[in-house]
Amino acid sequence: MLAVTILGNNSALPAYDRHPTAQLVTLDDQLFLVDCGEGTQVQLSKFRIRWGRINHIFISHLHGDHYFGLPGFLNSMGLLHRENDLHLYAPAQLFEILQLQFRAAETILPYKLHFHPLLEEGVLVNTEKFRIDCFATKHRIPCWGFRFEQVKAPRRLIPEKAIQHGVPAAFYDRLKWGEDYTNQSGELVRNEWVTEQAPKPKSYAYSADTLYDEELVPKVEGVDMLYHETTYLKDLGDRAASRFHSTTIQAACIAKRAGVGRLLIGHFSSKYDKLDVFQEEAREVFPQTDLAIEGVTYKA
Amino acid sequence: MLAVTILGNNSALPAYDRHPTAQLVTLDDQLFLVDCGEGTQVQLSKFRIRWGRINHIFISHLHGDHYFGLPGFLNSMGLLHRENDLHLYAPAQLFEILQLQFRAAETILPYKLHFHPLLEEGVLVNTEKFRIDCFATKHRIPCWGFRFEQVKAPRRLIPEKAIQHGVPAAFYDRLKWGEDYTNQSGELVRNEWVTEQAPKPKSYAYSADTLYDEELVPKVEGVDMLYHETTYLKDLGDRAASRFHSTTIQAACIAKRAGVGRLLIGHFSSKYDKLDVFQEEAREVFPQTDLAIEGVTYKA
Repeated sequence: MLAVTILGNNSALPAYDRHPTAQLVTLDDQLFLVDCGEGTQVQLSKFRIRWGRINHIFISHLHGDHYFGLPGFLNSMGLLHRENDLHLYAPAQLFEILQLQFRAAETILPYKLHFHPLLEEGVLVNTEKFRIDCFATKHRIPCWGFRFEQVKAPRRLIPEKAIQHGVPAAFYDRLKWGEDYTNQSGELVRNEWVTEQAPKPKSYAYSADTLYDEELVPKVEGVDMLYHETTYLKDLGDRAASRFHSTTIQAACIAKRAGVGRLLIGHFSSKYDKLDVFQEEAREVFPQTDLAIEGVTYKA
Repeated sequence: MLAVTILGNNSALPAYDRHPTAQLVTLDDQLFLVDCGEGTQVQLSKFRIRWGRINHIFISHLHGDHYFGLPGFLNSMGLLHRENDLHLYAPAQLFEILQLQFRAAETILPYKLHFHPLLEEGVLVNTEKFRIDCFATKHRIPCWGFRFEQVKAPRRLIPEKAIQHGVPAAFYDRLKWGEDYTNQSGELVRNEWVTEQAPKPKSYAYSADTLYDEELVPKVEGVDMLYHETTYLKDLGDRAASRFHSTTIQAACIAKRAGVGRLLIGHFSSKYDKLDVFQEEAREVFPQTDLAIEGVTYKA
């Protein structure tokens, strides 16, 4: 399972109860936080997300609306007695900023924070189950997108068969990842007797802040779901270009050229109170488009 | 008129829809922001406060719950095309942090930000109408309280007399500050014919985060209103001391010894969902105590 929960869908200036950028990527049993605008910790609590399970945070770039919530979030995890290691992937200067803030507050986090500076395109995390890459996008300052892929999706459990063969529920998770089960009498229960083939592994790309850039196409090609910013409606193409942002039509064109499964659009400018037109315009070019709405989870 | 509007009344971890510390001090026609926890810009909008009129910001210390909302607030004022100078009074390290953040984002604010490092107790701002001092409090890291005083309160206008003497409404503000009016025929309208004596100038002290400290008494002596933190109820005196915070009883004792007019208490720990007991305990010692509630304005 690969899904995205939107925590903030607005651009820099908070407005209309929309918040700056943050989203949670759920990949089977893993939670990843992508960007962390001001107020993200409150959004996480509001949507009852169990923060403690987030072990990896990805920050696309150092405009404040993508990271000003991070220092508070790191502190709060400390106050809540987090002990597990936390991995932070971000532009190198963020480490300096955090160090200065921790030093000024004499903060000692009760957990280990591993900082991984984003230096070049390529693999950030690679495990048996998932793989995460970063790629450069074109913005006013250095900016990174992230691509999440299931390497292997869990097999589908057939509960009635598992019960019939006497496999205890505690072993179900291992069944899903392909193990056979041997009971106390030494009898083997073959995995394929109690599970079905895994679905095709899923993929998701978050292209952060970017102007319209056809070089993005190969980087996000064929993903099941793409998040592309749409700060402006189509009539403001010039403004979008001058501010290194994109319009509805531009996002939809990238989705179409890259042949993605579905498109999520967000990072709406505060000049717009209503969002319907964003969806209408993007769907003219790419029908499988949805608005990224805060609190809603979208499956790849 | 001297009043305080509470924007955040909680300690470090946001909880129960209570926010980290921030408050707005209104002194006649001036607005001052005191501390700026994460989410302050959203609180200011929620309570329909006209941000653009804030020209002075005071940051007590560099624990995140007192300033993590500041970088976003400074940015947002830029996005809203602020042009007036802004004065920021804070511990010196904050300047380094902000510089690093601005550099990383390649931010150029459209207004001039004057940074005034807090180095020693004494006068920060001194005008004809008001005066603001800072004083040290005892916290885990260097921490400053602020004392706001009307130097001169405006006289009370008697509207019917002003009309009777033909003073145009545009001149009323100058009447309040003691000027006489001369009409187009050269006839003098004496100030005392159309105004009444000014009330006694008011004063307010914000003692930031502090442990129980009798040295605070002379620093806040005789103010019309004192804000003193009460992170804990009275049974947690030991915890308060070990964390450089105060209890209800301790705040009330300082208010009583300093002979202040009224006491506001806040900076409540996230361990408490209900606040009634804070008020009950403090009132046992100092009856003129009120809870600092977000969105409420308290007059000195």
